[in-house]
Amino acid sequence: MNIVFTFRPPRDIQADLQKKFPNETFSFYKQLDEAQSLLEAEILVTFGSDLTEERIHECESLKWIMVASAGIEEMPLQAIRDRDILVTNARGIHKIPMAEFTLGFMLNHVKRFAELHTLEQSETWNKELPLQELAGKEVAILGTGAIGQEIARLAKAFQMATTGVNKSGRHVEEFDQIFTIHELDSAVRGADFIVSVLPSTPETINLLQQEHFEAMKNTAAFINIGRGDLVSELVLLSAINDEEIAHAYLDVFTVEPLPEAHPFWRHPAITVTPHISSVTKQYVPRAMEIFEHNLRCFIDGGDYANVIDVTKGY
Amino acid sequence: MNIVFTFRPPRDIQADLQKKFPNETFSFYKQLDEAQSLLEAEILVTFGSDLTEERIHECESLKWIMVASAGIEEMPLQAIRDRDILVTNARGIHKIPMAEFTLGFMLNHVKRFAELHTLEQSETWNKELPLQELAGKEVAILGTGAIGQEIARLAKAFQMATTGVNKSGRHVEEFDQIFTIHELDSAVRGADFIVSVLPSTPETINLLQQEHFEAMKNTAAFINIGRGDLVSELVLLSAINDEEIAHAYLDVFTVEPLPEAHPFWRHPAITVTPHISSVTKQYVPRAMEIFEHNLRCFIDGGDYANVIDVTKGY
Repeated sequence: MNIVFTFRPPRDIQADLQKKFPNETFSFYKQLDEAQSLLEAEILVTFGSDLTEERIHECESLKWIMVASAGIEEMPLQAIRDRDILVTNARGIHKIPMAEFTLGFMLNHVKRFAELHTLEQSETWNKELPLQELAGKEVAILGTGAIGQEIARLAKAFQMATTGVNKSGRHVEEFDQIFTIHELDSAVRGADFIVSVLPSTPETINLLQQEHFEAMKNTAAFINIGRGDLVSELVLLSAINDEEIAHAYLDVFTVEPLPEAHPFWRHPAITVTPHISSVTKQYVPRAMEIFEHNLRCFIDGGDYANVIDVTKGY
Repeated sequence: MNIVFTFRPPRDIQADLQKKFPNETFSFYKQLDEAQSLLEAEILVTFGSDLTEERIHECESLKWIMVASAGIEEMPLQAIRDRDILVTNARGIHKIPMAEFTLGFMLNHVKRFAELHTLEQSETWNKELPLQELAGKEVAILGTGAIGQEIARLAKAFQMATTGVNKSGRHVEEFDQIFTIHELDSAVRGADFIVSVLPSTPETINLLQQEHFEAMKNTAAFINIGRGDLVSELVLLSAINDEEIAHAYLDVFTVEPLPEAHPFWRHPAITVTPHISSVTKQYVPRAMEIFEHNLRCFIDGGDYANVIDVTKGY
């Protein structure tokens, strides 16, 4: 079987795969354009942003696309559906780094590490900063999937109250209460932190409106590690400038990289990080664990992990 | 009964105490030198650094000193012991803010928030920073009391391995393994983080020696939120400059405030914070909860919380 990678995992991982599946033919390419054996691929392993409708048509033997990330927004879903190609992704491997990153933002907020860093740079000893605690505070998490749930689990360990927002309002473990996406006002009203881990779908684009920021506490911090198009940048900027909330921690943006001279960069109440919350040395090894499991299923049968419903897009 | 405070809690707390104990006489002073009714005090509530041997002799009716902090190193313990005065402190109220602060340092380390902050200041979008995770890492905690245990509890929530160091080697909940203070080399050898929460006692002064830093991983981070005299500044500076460890996060110092132009301030591998890890808005309310409990015991009998063994000093 021809298995084509459009990225190069570390050599030890390549060797490990070949050893575990000696009867299969693995080809590892730096990028899709260099993949000479692409047209023979029965299985394609990709980060997901290099596929076009044309490529799908060309790869006539293609039966399965393993996306070694979570986002599949850039994939030609219609062409894939027409051909009935199996799509799986690496959903779930992001939850640990992203939840840790979120708790990092939250601790930076209550412990004022950025200000402490500035004091240190000017060699200033100031014990009078009014530090706070996570304990006793409330976090509202938009999105109660694997990532949202992991954030809630850690928040509970810090003795925080956890509110979740999802489509149906169904109960999810680690959340004290759940609201539906239509009850967003009520969900965010009492929260000290509002965290979004939502993907970009027709329902989530511009979901967060001015009225929601008005409903938030003036002391609240908004954290977005999902997708930038959850909220219009103008709405967010107004909310910050009108002091509807105290701070925004943003890892994702409508346009990435965030353009030079964008007002977010230097705003004292906005913290910008370069879409990095899911980055971790454990990324490829964890994605390959899922791939190996699914490859075993592809060969011998069994239940695939992380099958994408191509009609829904997640 | 005359109850003298040598600090002023917020007015609502003062009123609350008077309401709960209507038969007692509370006097609240900004500092000990202004406490006109000091000599009549039967109960003294203090932060602990304002008492001298002479004051103890003067206060002939003094039966109980409530120290609204955890450190009692500056108190005239011999004079207190001679008079058989009860001493209680606010032990335990530090555990939440100090454990949160420690996890904040740890997340800042693996997620490189200081570097991300610097990138932001120069409007630089750089996704290539090699971020790490707490999950799977090991923390060695010197001191397995309330604070150490709370740090270990949170570390376990982050899926870390936890090693504790205490005098006897006795098992303590939340720790995967425990070493005695004489096995420090072995305790720190495999750790990614070495955290000290130890108080200053004859046994802990200069406890951490060059050999221990040599035993640590080169990638390890040392976090000290206990007392600065745990390690000589020269030993620590050498360990950092010789790259025995990767970074030191220091909230406590041999001399505080850390003097101007001290080499720690600007060292790229040392983070300095101003002895602030225990600071929290919840501090006085929590200390008063303990005081109220003990005052009830003083009046009606019962088991005091946080009695200090004055002969041992903790």
